[in-house]
Amino acid sequence: MTHYKLALLGFGNVGQALARLLLDKRDTLLHQYDITFSMTGIATGRHGMAIDPQGLDVSRALQAVSQGKTLEAFSILPVPRDTFDFIRRCAADVLFENTPVNYETGQPALDHLKIALDNGMHAITANKGPVVHGFHELTDLARGKGLKFYFESAVMDGAPIFSLYRETLPGAQLKSLKGLLNSTTNLILTRMEQGESFDQAVAYCQEIGIAETDPSGDVDGWDAAVKVAALVTVMMGVPLKPQQVSRLGIRGITAEEVSRASSEGRRWKLVCSAQRGANGVEARVAPELVAPDSPLYGVNGTTSIVQFETDVLGLLSIVESDPGPRTTAYGLFADFLNAVRPG
Amino acid sequence: MTHYKLALLGFGNVGQALARLLLDKRDTLLHQYDITFSMTGIATGRHGMAIDPQGLDVSRALQAVSQGKTLEAFSILPVPRDTFDFIRRCAADVLFENTPVNYETGQPALDHLKIALDNGMHAITANKGPVVHGFHELTDLARGKGLKFYFESAVMDGAPIFSLYRETLPGAQLKSLKGLLNSTTNLILTRMEQGESFDQAVAYCQEIGIAETDPSGDVDGWDAAVKVAALVTVMMGVPLKPQQVSRLGIRGITAEEVSRASSEGRRWKLVCSAQRGANGVEARVAPELVAPDSPLYGVNGTTSIVQFETDVLGLLSIVESDPGPRTTAYGLFADFLNAVRPG
Repeated sequence: MTHYKLALLGFGNVGQALARLLLDKRDTLLHQYDITFSMTGIATGRHGMAIDPQGLDVSRALQAVSQGKTLEAFSILPVPRDTFDFIRRCAADVLFENTPVNYETGQPALDHLKIALDNGMHAITANKGPVVHGFHELTDLARGKGLKFYFESAVMDGAPIFSLYRETLPGAQLKSLKGLLNSTTNLILTRMEQGESFDQAVAYCQEIGIAETDPSGDVDGWDAAVKVAALVTVMMGVPLKPQQVSRLGIRGITAEEVSRASSEGRRWKLVCSAQRGANGVEARVAPELVAPDSPLYGVNGTTSIVQFETDVLGLLSIVESDPGPRTTAYGLFADFLNAVRPG
Repeated sequence: MTHYKLALLGFGNVGQALARLLLDKRDTLLHQYDITFSMTGIATGRHGMAIDPQGLDVSRALQAVSQGKTLEAFSILPVPRDTFDFIRRCAADVLFENTPVNYETGQPALDHLKIALDNGMHAITANKGPVVHGFHELTDLARGKGLKFYFESAVMDGAPIFSLYRETLPGAQLKSLKGLLNSTTNLILTRMEQGESFDQAVAYCQEIGIAETDPSGDVDGWDAAVKVAALVTVMMGVPLKPQQVSRLGIRGITAEEVSRASSEGRRWKLVCSAQRGANGVEARVAPELVAPDSPLYGVNGTTSIVQFETDVLGLLSIVESDPGPRTTAYGLFADFLNAVRPG
């Protein structure tokens, strides 16, 4: 039996879903993995932070936040001054970092993860920023300390992408990849096919909470570019910044073009691709017309797909249908189990 | 640096492709995995067997077989009497078992793998028979000896299916699965859509070498049923024999029905499915009419797909496009690396 002390930095939809998943899977962890856990710290953006070396009551923390209450009443130790103080004092074995993404620098998530590793914790995140801005640094730091830096949920939520490559495709070389990695634009284009205008479709995505008030991160292709950069950096071993991905969003696609494509039996998709060539890796995000014989054609709404071309397998495609916060939470949960398993 | 002695039992298309892949990946093994290997034994169905404790010349063995020559001239030790004698004397660390499948009993592959494990070798196979007829026995035997019984290529060639579940989906529970797992019937149905009769399509599959002289294993759904039984046995933890899979093949589907489906925008597919329910697992193989909104619709020719519904991820689909012997060989190669890696 091994006991792990966990800490959550970020307690929004994903952090809360992870807390619930951990509670749901308590018996599975115990009986299948000989693992018990306690939550020694939770840090939220708007409901304060709490540290209890003996373990917080996770159900009560979930309830408090759902009622808009602060977590500070649960803190046995003095309430941390800031997130850095939180990480240094939470005394956890594993830090789950789920603060908002910063496309340009990866901060402050990058520093959060560094401090976690420096303090002997496995560093796990759903945040793409530190992957594209710090993959090599964080991986080397983790390796030097016998720890793991894992980030399965950074691309395609909790679907196994990075772990697929790391654990199941040994000795394979990735030659190219192609996919639909931004679900907001995919849903916008799907709804435009059903007759909505671009603005109506964006408004719908904002209403159901998958697009931000400022939708430019999605519609201008930034989110997709960061994901391509993360895949190339990790799976092709070639450091690539989002700014180096050739990027065109979907603002230029009119309702008329969408409807003309439909009448010709085709669909506009925001396609992500990267290819290893003689001069390094070429990566791009751009709208493409897709025909029914493409595996991308049938991928609608918030479903996403990635196709990997390796030197050993031909094309291998992974499709994740209709993800939600629990899906992302599962990626973090799987990272935890993969980080602590022997070997 | 670790040196592994390998032995190949079965040296047809897949065994030869594995030998070539090992030669191709020699540098990768050395530089990325600190692994060297020698081939201490090769047993063929029609070109004899050879054992050399110092390592056979794999390129010369490939050449000899391609010229229809026997391997026996290469044997430094006395030529084995039979496959069992071969396994006992090949002195390998890893046995790759690639003899023909036996749907009903899994023999003699099952005994081959048992003897390999008893003699301290990791047991790796692309053969579905021993998975459905001996998974628990072989896995327990391997575990007791600190060895591995792996069989990635038994379903969907070398695409990561079993390793996906084992390595990347920890703590997940498989609720149901659905897929197109037999590429011969999928190709037959695709060609019937293009206007061929059933007999013409079968003849084509025989011509390109993917269907047997007696095509009943494919067209009556046996191959698909064995694969469903293997997935259920391993991934749902419920032992299931192929005979327990409700099974209907594609002989009953006429050219008229295929063409009527096409004109209605639909396709006949031989669908494999299994579902966990209150009374255990219900598994079946049967032709189904598939509409364009199904991920199965676009899967044509020899491409295959499987969709997994788990308690944590919603639907996760894996698509393998246009496999060949090298794809299957890669599954064996990946099993080898996964079997010998620390942990």
